[in-house]
Amino acid sequence: MSKKRVLITGAAGRIGKTCARDLRERYDLRLMYHRTPLEEDYGLEVVQGAATDMERMEEVVDGMDAIVHMAGDPRVGASWESILESNIVGLYCLYEAARRRQVSRIVFASSNHATGFYEQEGTFTTVAMPARPDSYYGVSKVFGEDLGRYYHDQHGMEIICLRIGSFQPDEAVTTRSNDRILSTWLSHRDCVQLVWRSIESTTKYGIYYGISGNKRAYWDISNARTELGYEPEDDAERLA
Amino acid sequence: MSKKRVLITGAAGRIGKTCARDLRERYDLRLMYHRTPLEEDYGLEVVQGAATDMERMEEVVDGMDAIVHMAGDPRVGASWESILESNIVGLYCLYEAARRRQVSRIVFASSNHATGFYEQEGTFTTVAMPARPDSYYGVSKVFGEDLGRYYHDQHGMEIICLRIGSFQPDEAVTTRSNDRILSTWLSHRDCVQLVWRSIESTTKYGIYYGISGNKRAYWDISNARTELGYEPEDDAERLA
Repeated sequence: MSKKRVLITGAAGRIGKTCARDLRERYDLRLMYHRTPLEEDYGLEVVQGAATDMERMEEVVDGMDAIVHMAGDPRVGASWESILESNIVGLYCLYEAARRRQVSRIVFASSNHATGFYEQEGTFTTVAMPARPDSYYGVSKVFGEDLGRYYHDQHGMEIICLRIGSFQPDEAVTTRSNDRILSTWLSHRDCVQLVWRSIESTTKYGIYYGISGNKRAYWDISNARTELGYEPEDDAERLA
Repeated sequence: MSKKRVLITGAAGRIGKTCARDLRERYDLRLMYHRTPLEEDYGLEVVQGAATDMERMEEVVDGMDAIVHMAGDPRVGASWESILESNIVGLYCLYEAARRRQVSRIVFASSNHATGFYEQEGTFTTVAMPARPDSYYGVSKVFGEDLGRYYHDQHGMEIICLRIGSFQPDEAVTTRSNDRILSTWLSHRDCVQLVWRSIESTTKYGIYYGISGNKRAYWDISNARTELGYEPEDDAERLA
């Protein structure tokens, strides 16, 4: 059986790089970058493009079985203008290009900042709770979840939204780590697992917090376990 | 005691016109239109502006106690390009201009299309259920609710989101009406009441379906009754 063809956008970013490295055996990868060329391409197919360029995005997504969409402005404090362009318009182009070229499955890098105000108030948070974004960045992630819901309901597309936590290498978690990382850490290998399980799952739409199996977690990952089959291997507590 | 100063945007639209006519005794109104001049201004202050022009919006909102934001593309089938400009960018400018000029209360015309896919499936819907927009228009309304939540949480602004139903004059509800209008009708006087109760309520953020007290309603208005004090006077059933 041939491997699934998977596009990773934002492949020069921190998460994109890790996914490219650790998913290249499992999938037939195409890597897309925008401004920053890739440091390492492992001999894989590499394409350049802006997520806001619809014509280009149609070419880039063409022929794919799934898309892991990591592109976008990753800064929680980004300005409205940047968020509007890179995240809001960029998301529309990505979903719409995928629809036009019949790519049916998308894994969208949402963020815990979609519900950041619960964290500020110390509230344990589940995906069933209404969004409470803490920034324009967070608003754009909620927008991507809702636009994805529309493309799912209207066009039958399959969209998995991952509210990614603190994506950090093991060495970032130490006895000197603050409480936040002990609660919100997503290890590299758990991130990679979450992404491939999102591609392989039979679930057709859902929102999931993306963190390791942290003892101190204040975001609920039980639906990622039951609906995606996610089995985190790491717990920040063990490294602290 | 002097009357509150209230800006109505989209004052040339169907709902804007009705609010201007029926709220001009209760409030000191400023009416904003964009492309279509007002047919009737009742001698009130009238201003012209685009909701997407931040500089102009800062002038227009200045000095107001509250804003009733009815401006935006009202077409459920509107294109992404129009929704992006008139509704998404327009909402950002409205909230941000209000923040800069310290206008603390906004009544935002959201829409039942924020959850239109529940209706298509025949599901009774409450505001606690996740959004399921049925169009780019519906997506923009969810966006406005979430951006409003951000401005509320981050800046203490007070934002009431009304998911308006089928706003129609009494004569539109007849024995020949289809089931939808019998369920989703919002009479003119109930709409006007809902708007002034949204301005007067002590509730600082909330989402409410805006329909009359229709016997066949499939959207829950109980929180509008308890949180806003809304007491609808009409029921489509009585006119059918």
